[in-house]
Amino acid sequence: MGQPVKAVVLLSGGLDSATTLAMARNNGRECHALSILYGQRHVVELQAAERIAKEAESHKVIEIPLDAWGGSALTADLEVPKNALDETAIPITYVPARNTIFLALALGYAEVLGAEEIWCGVNALDYSGYPDCRPEFIHAFQELARVGTKQGVEGDPIKIKAPLIHMTKVEVIQTGLQLGVDYGQTHSCYDPAPDGRPCAECDSCLIRQAAFDQIGIPDPARP
Amino acid sequence: MGQPVKAVVLLSGGLDSATTLAMARNNGRECHALSILYGQRHVVELQAAERIAKEAESHKVIEIPLDAWGGSALTADLEVPKNALDETAIPITYVPARNTIFLALALGYAEVLGAEEIWCGVNALDYSGYPDCRPEFIHAFQELARVGTKQGVEGDPIKIKAPLIHMTKVEVIQTGLQLGVDYGQTHSCYDPAPDGRPCAECDSCLIRQAAFDQIGIPDPARP
Repeated sequence: MGQPVKAVVLLSGGLDSATTLAMARNNGRECHALSILYGQRHVVELQAAERIAKEAESHKVIEIPLDAWGGSALTADLEVPKNALDETAIPITYVPARNTIFLALALGYAEVLGAEEIWCGVNALDYSGYPDCRPEFIHAFQELARVGTKQGVEGDPIKIKAPLIHMTKVEVIQTGLQLGVDYGQTHSCYDPAPDGRPCAECDSCLIRQAAFDQIGIPDPARP
Repeated sequence: MGQPVKAVVLLSGGLDSATTLAMARNNGRECHALSILYGQRHVVELQAAERIAKEAESHKVIEIPLDAWGGSALTADLEVPKNALDETAIPITYVPARNTIFLALALGYAEVLGAEEIWCGVNALDYSGYPDCRPEFIHAFQELARVGTKQGVEGDPIKIKAPLIHMTKVEVIQTGLQLGVDYGQTHSCYDPAPDGRPCAECDSCLIRQAAFDQIGIPDPARP
């Protein structure tokens, strides 16, 4: 029995990252959660991250001011689209280069910790149309981690794990339920009410609700 | 005559990025400078960036708290090595994943601005041993920009320009002098005195001084 493998787990407080953390723990990883505040409207998501991170070895929260340049309904004063899942274009909730920025920060943190892996909850199927949630993106970032870090040059590169990448939202939730994830602690809405209640009409709420409906259980986060 | 090409230029306030900005302007680019404060000790570098950025169309400064995890003599309370250029290992001034994080932020900013290019002053020859200053790294990031952004998926990917990548420090300075760069405005030291005066003994000071010596002119930043 050697030391457990250290992993940085990107934790937003949503359903996907909570499931990813549970999967990493189930694989015996020593999990160091990293939550990134990025000037988004929904700080309530971070409160969810703090609740979920109790399952991790440690939890770090850092703040980066992406609202300095806006460009998304999640970082600027733009309307979050409602009941718009049928649109085919990349939605206005796309935050330019968000997952590149998140994985870059996770890469730096992993190198400092001496972690061998980064786990993230990106998901290509129910991904709402974001380019940086596709397998091509994860592969390109893996290559970058290999050539762009001391750890990659001197030894084994930090591995990027995206275990949800090909799962449907139903499969994500079913996996998490088997691992004991309490989805009542998670938060998915892009545009919650001031008291934190989900709007039930944004893409994220609609995808989540459809998945719970399909499984046939109520969403524990919606009393 | 169409619109000028918009470019984001990463501007640290050092010699390399000042030269890169001058080259981008000389190529007719509309330059939007981006400086990233990362909890480094040398805020004096940012003052230099502000002076140099007067040549740009705009200048944005954002702060990211890499000192939240340290891991480098530039982000934590570690001694900056002096007179240590002969060491062959990656030095302790290496900031884990710094250029990945910087380019990731520049990528997000470029996408919001509708910029077609990102210019950065990374330099492989006199690079002091950092893995993320090599051509392989730039190529890997270019691929990431292609697959990971809306602009890359829907049209032409944002181009990563690293015009200094194969230059020696002497060539960088000679190029800048031809373009009228005032190196008296730049700052390179990793460990300046409280009044901003360079230490003259860190890797960055030694590389800079050797280059000015070889050219045979005094460094205008050292009165």
